[in-house]
Amino acid sequence: MTHQPDAFHRPIWDRGEPIDPQMLAFTIGDDWLQDRRLVEVDIQGSLAHADGLERVGLLSPADHRAIRAGLEALLASHRRGEWTVEPADEDVHSAVERRLIAAIGDAGKRLHTGRSRNDQVALDLRLWLRGAVAETEAGAARLVRALEDLGARDGALPLPGYTHGRRAMPSSVGAWALAHGAALAQDLDEFERARSRLERCPLGSGSGYGVPLPLDREGNARALGFAGPEEPVTLTQLTRGRAELAYLTALEALALSIGKLCFDLWAFGSEEHGFVALDGAMTTGSSLMPHKRNPDVLELSRAHCRQVIAERAALLDLLRDLPSGYHRDFQLIKPVLFRAHDRLAGMLSLLPRVLAGLRWDRARLEAACADPKLGATARALERVQRGEAFRDAYRAEAGPKG
Amino acid sequence: MTHQPDAFHRPIWDRGEPIDPQMLAFTIGDDWLQDRRLVEVDIQGSLAHADGLERVGLLSPADHRAIRAGLEALLASHRRGEWTVEPADEDVHSAVERRLIAAIGDAGKRLHTGRSRNDQVALDLRLWLRGAVAETEAGAARLVRALEDLGARDGALPLPGYTHGRRAMPSSVGAWALAHGAALAQDLDEFERARSRLERCPLGSGSGYGVPLPLDREGNARALGFAGPEEPVTLTQLTRGRAELAYLTALEALALSIGKLCFDLWAFGSEEHGFVALDGAMTTGSSLMPHKRNPDVLELSRAHCRQVIAERAALLDLLRDLPSGYHRDFQLIKPVLFRAHDRLAGMLSLLPRVLAGLRWDRARLEAACADPKLGATARALERVQRGEAFRDAYRAEAGPKG
Amino acid sequence: MTHQPDAFHRPIWDRGEPIDPQMLAFTIGDDWLQDRRLVEVDIQGSLAHADGLERVGLLSPADHRAIRAGLEALLASHRRGEWTVEPADEDVHSAVERRLIAAIGDAGKRLHTGRSRNDQVALDLRLWLRGAVAETEAGAARLVRALEDLGARDGALPLPGYTHGRRAMPSSVGAWALAHGAALAQDLDEFERARSRLERCPLGSGSGYGVPLPLDREGNARALGFAGPEEPVTLTQLTRGRAELAYLTALEALALSIGKLCFDLWAFGSEEHGFVALDGAMTTGSSLMPHKRNPDVLELSRAHCRQVIAERAALLDLLRDLPSGYHRDFQLIKPVLFRAHDRLAGMLSLLPRVLAGLRWDRARLEAACADPKLGATARALERVQRGEAFRDAYRAEAGPKG
Amino acid sequence: MTHQPDAFHRPIWDRGEPIDPQMLAFTIGDDWLQDRRLVEVDIQGSLAHADGLERVGLLSPADHRAIRAGLEALLASHRRGEWTVEPADEDVHSAVERRLIAAIGDAGKRLHTGRSRNDQVALDLRLWLRGAVAETEAGAARLVRALEDLGARDGALPLPGYTHGRRAMPSSVGAWALAHGAALAQDLDEFERARSRLERCPLGSGSGYGVPLPLDREGNARALGFAGPEEPVTLTQLTRGRAELAYLTALEALALSIGKLCFDLWAFGSEEHGFVALDGAMTTGSSLMPHKRNPDVLELSRAHCRQVIAERAALLDLLRDLPSGYHRDFQLIKPVLFRAHDRLAGMLSLLPRVLAGLRWDRARLEAACADPKLGATARALERVQRGEAFRDAYRAEAGPKG
Repeated sequence: MTHQPDAFHRPIWDRGEPIDPQMLAFTIGDDWLQDRRLVEVDIQGSLAHADGLERVGLLSPADHRAIRAGLEALLASHRRGEWTVEPADEDVHSAVERRLIAAIGDAGKRLHTGRSRNDQVALDLRLWLRGAVAETEAGAARLVRALEDLGARDGALPLPGYTHGRRAMPSSVGAWALAHGAALAQDLDEFERARSRLERCPLGSGSGYGVPLPLDREGNARALGFAGPEEPVTLTQLTRGRAELAYLTALEALALSIGKLCFDLWAFGSEEHGFVALDGAMTTGSSLMPHKRNPDVLELSRAHCRQVIAERAALLDLLRDLPSGYHRDFQLIKPVLFRAHDRLAGMLSLLPRVLAGLRWDRARLEAACADPKLGATARALERVQRGEAFRDAYRAEAGPKG
Repeated sequence: MTHQPDAFHRPIWDRGEPIDPQMLAFTIGDDWLQDRRLVEVDIQGSLAHADGLERVGLLSPADHRAIRAGLEALLASHRRGEWTVEPADEDVHSAVERRLIAAIGDAGKRLHTGRSRNDQVALDLRLWLRGAVAETEAGAARLVRALEDLGARDGALPLPGYTHGRRAMPSSVGAWALAHGAALAQDLDEFERARSRLERCPLGSGSGYGVPLPLDREGNARALGFAGPEEPVTLTQLTRGRAELAYLTALEALALSIGKLCFDLWAFGSEEHGFVALDGAMTTGSSLMPHKRNPDVLELSRAHCRQVIAERAALLDLLRDLPSGYHRDFQLIKPVLFRAHDRLAGMLSLLPRVLAGLRWDRARLEAACADPKLGATARALERVQRGEAFRDAYRAEAGPKG
Repeated sequence: MTHQPDAFHRPIWDRGEPIDPQMLAFTIGDDWLQDRRLVEVDIQGSLAHADGLERVGLLSPADHRAIRAGLEALLASHRRGEWTVEPADEDVHSAVERRLIAAIGDAGKRLHTGRSRNDQVALDLRLWLRGAVAETEAGAARLVRALEDLGARDGALPLPGYTHGRRAMPSSVGAWALAHGAALAQDLDEFERARSRLERCPLGSGSGYGVPLPLDREGNARALGFAGPEEPVTLTQLTRGRAELAYLTALEALALSIGKLCFDLWAFGSEEHGFVALDGAMTTGSSLMPHKRNPDVLELSRAHCRQVIAERAALLDLLRDLPSGYHRDFQLIKPVLFRAHDRLAGMLSLLPRVLAGLRWDRARLEAACADPKLGATARALERVQRGEAFRDAYRAEAGPKG
Repeated sequence: MTHQPDAFHRPIWDRGEPIDPQMLAFTIGDDWLQDRRLVEVDIQGSLAHADGLERVGLLSPADHRAIRAGLEALLASHRRGEWTVEPADEDVHSAVERRLIAAIGDAGKRLHTGRSRNDQVALDLRLWLRGAVAETEAGAARLVRALEDLGARDGALPLPGYTHGRRAMPSSVGAWALAHGAALAQDLDEFERARSRLERCPLGSGSGYGVPLPLDREGNARALGFAGPEEPVTLTQLTRGRAELAYLTALEALALSIGKLCFDLWAFGSEEHGFVALDGAMTTGSSLMPHKRNPDVLELSRAHCRQVIAERAALLDLLRDLPSGYHRDFQLIKPVLFRAHDRLAGMLSLLPRVLAGLRWDRARLEAACADPKLGATARALERVQRGEAFRDAYRAEAGPKG
C-alpha cells in the first residue's frame, strides 16, 4: 500500500482511505489519454453547470464569477497547449476540477455540486458526438460529390455489369459511380438516428437517479443547445452508450459502402481487368519486388472498413447483458468510439483524392464490353418483342453450350 | 449425372444441359422452405409486373387476362392451403411460374419478360419487410404500454437505484419502469431508417443493370405502394440486404433494451433481492429439484435478445467484403432475417403478459430502501445547502470506513 | 389458463400447478425439433445411467431389466421410424421418459433417479459431438486429399503468384493447391481441442452441484467411453457450451480456409482471369440472362463459411456474461451448433467433386505468366549474384516508371 | 506532391518516383508505434538471416561481420533507450535497415537480399508470439493457483448453488473456487494450438512465393528455434494471421472464464447477497455519492474480457473473405493482437491479488444456506432410498405451492 497518490493527485472520490495503486492504474487504464479529446467539451459543460447553479442560488455570485474566470483561463491555456490530461489525472473531469481548485481555491470545490461524473461524461460525449456527426457527414458528402464528379467526367465509358463475378449485361462507369454515390447518400440518412439520440441533456441525472437539489435542468439544457433535459432521469444511464452506438451504426453503413467501392476499384485495377489505374503517387512498392505498384490505399481502406464494423460490435458488447444503471464497463466505450471515428476521418479525407486521380483505360473497357455474351439478354428480348414467349426466347439464346 | 430433375421440375434457367443434382440440392438448400413466407408477396409483385407489361404492350390483353386469372387462382388456392413451395421447386419464383405455366399454358411463359429473379426477390423482401416493420412496431408499442401500465400501477413502490450493482440512491419502481418504456420508445424510432430503405421499387432493375425494354417502372412502383422506382438501376444490387440490415438494426435496438429489462427482472426476482415474483404459471420447474420455480421465460428472452444481436452480425457478414453486383451469397440473408423477426415476435407477444403478472414485494422493497447508505448523498447535499463546499461535505459524509 | 397440457403431456417437472401455455410454448420453442438428433445418444446415456443405478442398488434387478428392455424397444422403434420427438414432448428427455413410463409403467418413474436434465443434456451433447468431430474430420481429410490430387494432376501448370491482388512472382497450380491442402491439414489439428473437452463424463453432476446419492460415476463414465467423470461437479455447468465452442472453433478454422479456397477459384474463373472453369454441370443459370454459367456453388460455399464464423460468434454470445451455474439461455446452443455442423457437412461432401471437375486453361495461364513483371525480382537477384548490393539492384530494376 | 520524404526517410521501396505524402501517412498509420514492440525480435531475425546469407555465399565474410556488428550495436543502443521506431520510419524493418545503412554504409544494403517484409513480419510476429504465449500461460497459471489457494483457505464455507440465478442445492466456496480453477486450467490447453502454429519458420518464403536464391532455410529455421522451415512457401501468406488467431482463441477462452469469475464475485458482493467483500483498498469511490465502495476492478476486468472477445472477432475480420496471398489489410492485425494481449496481462497481474484480499462473510453465507428450499432435492432422494419412485417422490416434495 506504499506509493499512495500524493495529495494533489488523490482521486476526487478520495475518502481518506488507502488506495491500491495497481488497482488505481488498472482502472484508469488509458482513460486519461482518451479524455484528452474531451477537454473543451468538459469545460463547456462545466461553464453551463456553474451558470445553472448560480441561477438557482447554489453558487454565490462571487463563487460563480471565480469559477467562470477559472474555467475560462483553463480553456485558454489548454488551447495554447499549456496543459492537457495527464496519467495521474485519472480523467478529464478530475483534471479540470483539480486545476480549478489549485487556481481559484475553495470556490472550486463547489463546482461539482449536484453533478456526478456519470452525467458529466454522458454530457461530454453528447457534445463531442454533436461535432463528430457534423464532421463525418461533411466528409461523406465530399465523397459523394467525388463520385458524382467521376460520373460526370468518365461516366460515358462502358463497363461490363457483373453478377456472380461474371459478365452479365452492358453497363457504364457512370452507372457504377452514381450507384456508389447514391448508396453513400442513403447512408448519410443514418446520421439522423444519431442526432435524435443527442437531443436531450443528461445534466442533472446525477449518478443515474437524479439529484435532490432544485437544479435548473431546463435552462442548462437550452444553454447547451439541447431540446430539453432527458426525462426520466433514470433513462440516461439505462441508455448509456446508445447515442455512441447510433453514431457507429452510421459509420458502419459508410464502411459497408466504402468497403464495396474499394473492393471494386481494387479488382478493376488488377492486371486481369486492367480497367483503371491509381495515380502512381498513390501506389506503394514492395521491399523485395522492384516492379510493384500496389494499391495499399484501397486495401487499408477496406481493412479499416472491416475494423469499423468490428468496432461497432465491440461497442455493442460493452452495452449488452448488463442490468440497468451505470457500470464501469462503460469507460471502455470511448477508445472504441474514437478509433472508429478516426478511421472514417482518414478515409473520407483521402478517398476523394484517390477518385480524382483514377485513370480509366478506354481500350480495355471497350474490349471487355465487346464480349458477345453481354448481348445475350438483349437478343432474347428482341425475340420477345417479335412475339416469342420469354421462356422460349431464353432457351433459344442459351444455346447448346456455355 | 443420373437423377436429372424431371421436365416439370427443371430449373427455370434450364439450358438443356446436364445439371449436377448434388450441386442443385446444395445451392437450393432450404431456400424453398424460407420462401414459403413469400408466396403472397411474390404473387402480388407478379400481378403488378403483369399489369405493367400490358400497359406498355409487352403483353397482349388476352395473355394479361390469362396471367391475372392464373395468378389470382394460385393465390386463392394457396390461401386455402392447397399448395406451397416444395423442395423440388427451388424457390418461390419458380414455384409460382411453374404452376402458372401448368395452369394457363404458354401465356405463362411471358410473365418473366423484363424481370430477373434478382429484382423479383428484392421486391418480395421489401414487400415482406413492409409488413414485418409494421407488425414489430405494433408489438413494441404494446410492450411500451405494458411498462407504462406497470409504472401507473406499482410506480410508487420504492426501489433502490444501483450503480456498479451497488446501492446508490433512492428510486422507485415507477422511475425504473418508465425509463424502460422510454428507452423502448426511442428504439421505435429506429424503424424509420428501415422504412426509408423500403421507399423505392426495385422492379425493372433486372439482374442489376436494368432491362432493355420500355418498362413502366414508375407505374409499377406506384401500384405497389412505393414512392417511385429505385434509381439508378445499379443501386438495387449494390445495396442488396441493406433494408434487411436496417430492420435488424431496429430489432437489435429492441433486443438491447429488452435484454436489459429481462436482466433486471431476473436479478430483482432472486431470493437475495426478493423484490418481485413472476406469476407462478409463468415459471417452470426442474426435472431433479422439486422446489424450483424458474424464470426461464426471462432467460430465454435474454438469450433470444443475444441471438438477435448475433443475427444482425450474421446478416452483416453476408453483405460485406464483396464487390458490387448480385452474388448468390445473398440467398442466405432470408433465414437470418426471418429468425430474428420471429424471435422478437415471440417476445413481444409474451412479455406484456409477464409484466402484467408481476407481484412486487413491498416489504422487501421498503427494507432495502431503508439502507442508510442510500441517504448519504442527500446528507452531503444538505450540508451544501447550509453553505459547505461540496468536496468538503462529501468527505465529511464519506466517513472513515466503508 | 385454459388449454393446460393433458396428463400425458404435462412437463416432467409438473408440480400440479397451472402452467401458462404460451409461456410453455415460448420456452420450448423448437427445442423438440433440435432434439430429434439426440434420440439415440439420449437412450444410450439412459441405458448407462440405469446400469449404474442397478450397480449401486438404487434400482432393483427387475426394474433395471424392465427399463433396459423398454429403452431398447424405444431405440429399435425409433430406428424403424415409428416415433420421434414431437412438439408436445418438450424435449428428447421428456419424450423418452414419457414413452418409457407409458410402456413399462412405474419402473419408468425410477429412471431419472439421481439425474437432472442438466447433466443429461450435457452428456447427450458430448456423445453427439464425439460423432460429429469424427465425421467432420473425415470430410476435411477427403478435401485435403482432393487438393493433393489436384496438385498431382495439374500442379505443373504455371500460375502467377499475387500480392495485393497484383502479379508478384511466378508460381504454379501445384504450389497453390498444396498450400491450400496444407492449410486445411493444420486446421484438422484444431479438432484436438474439441476432443479434449469431451474426455470427461458429466453424468452425476446433476443440476450442477452433484447428487446426494452414491452413484457410480467412475463406472458410468467408463461404460460410455469417457476417461472418467468430470470433477469437480461444479465444473460441468461452469464450462457449459465450451466443448461446443471448441468444435465450432475447429469448424471456423475450416471455414476460413475453405472460404479462401472458394474465393480464389471464384476469381480465377472470371472472364478476366480465365484460368479455370467449373464443370458445366456444376454451374447454374440466370432466370433472365440466357448465357450465364454461374459459380453459385462457390458463392454459397463462401457464404456458408461466413455463416459458420457468425455461428461461432452466436454460440459465444450465449455463454458469455453470465454468472456460473445453469441458465436456460444454454438451450439455444443446440440450433447454432447443428446449423454450423450441417453447413460444413454439405460443403465437405460437395467440394471434392467440384475440385475433381476443374478444367484449367493452359493457354491463359501461360499467357498470364509470360508477363515480364513477374521476372523483375529474379532479374534484381541476378544482379545481386553478380555482386551488386540488393538495394541498388532493386532500384535499377524498378525503372523510371510502373 | 510537395513535402516529399527526405532522402533518409524515403521508403525502402523508393522507386525514385513521386509519393503522395497523405497516402503515405494513411498507409503507415500507427504502424510505427505498434512496431516499437518488435525491435528486438526484428534484429534477432535479421542476425539469423545475415548468418544464413553468409553461409550460402550471398554475403562476404567482411560484409557479414559489418552487418552483425551493426545490428548488435543497434540492439544495444535500443536497449539503452537511445532510439526506437519513429513516425517517419514507416515500420520497424525500415527503421533498422535505415539505421544500419547509416551506420555501416553499403554493406547494409545487402542485408535485405532474399527477404521480403512479408516473410520478415511473419517471422517477427512468430517470435513475439512465442514470448507472449509463455508470458500469458505463466500469468494464467498464477491465477489458477490463486483460486486453489482460495479453495484451500475458505473452501469449507457454505455457498448456495444456483441454477437460473435461483437457489438450487447446497454447495461450498471450495466447489466454486476449484471449478473456476479447473476451468482456467482447461483453457490453458488452448495455448497448445497457438504453439503448434508457431513451429515453422517463414523466413525464405519472401513475398509469398519463395525467393530464387539458394537460401539455407533449414539452417535459419533451426538457428531461430523452429522445428524447420514452413513448406510449401505459399503456405505462409495463405495462413497469415492464423497463429495470431490461435493465440487470441486462447485469450478468448481465458476471457470467458475470467468474465464469469468476475461476474460471480460482482454479484456475491452486492448488498443483497452480502457473501463477500473486496479489500477496501481495491474499491473505488463515486464523485457524487460519499458512501460508495465500488467494485470497478471487477467491472473493468469483465469489460476487458468482453473486449478481448471482440478483438478476436476483429482479427478474424481481417483474415476472412480475401483471396490467397499477402494483402496490406494484414497490417491491422498488430494493434488488435497487442491490445488483447495487454488486457489479459493487466488482469492476470491484478486478479490474484484481488482474490487474496477477499473477505467472505460467514454469517451471511450460513444464513443463505439455511434456506430450506436447498434441501428439497435431498428430501426427495431420501424418499427414493426408502423405495419411492423418483417421479412420485418429486411430486410429493414439490408441494402445492412455490
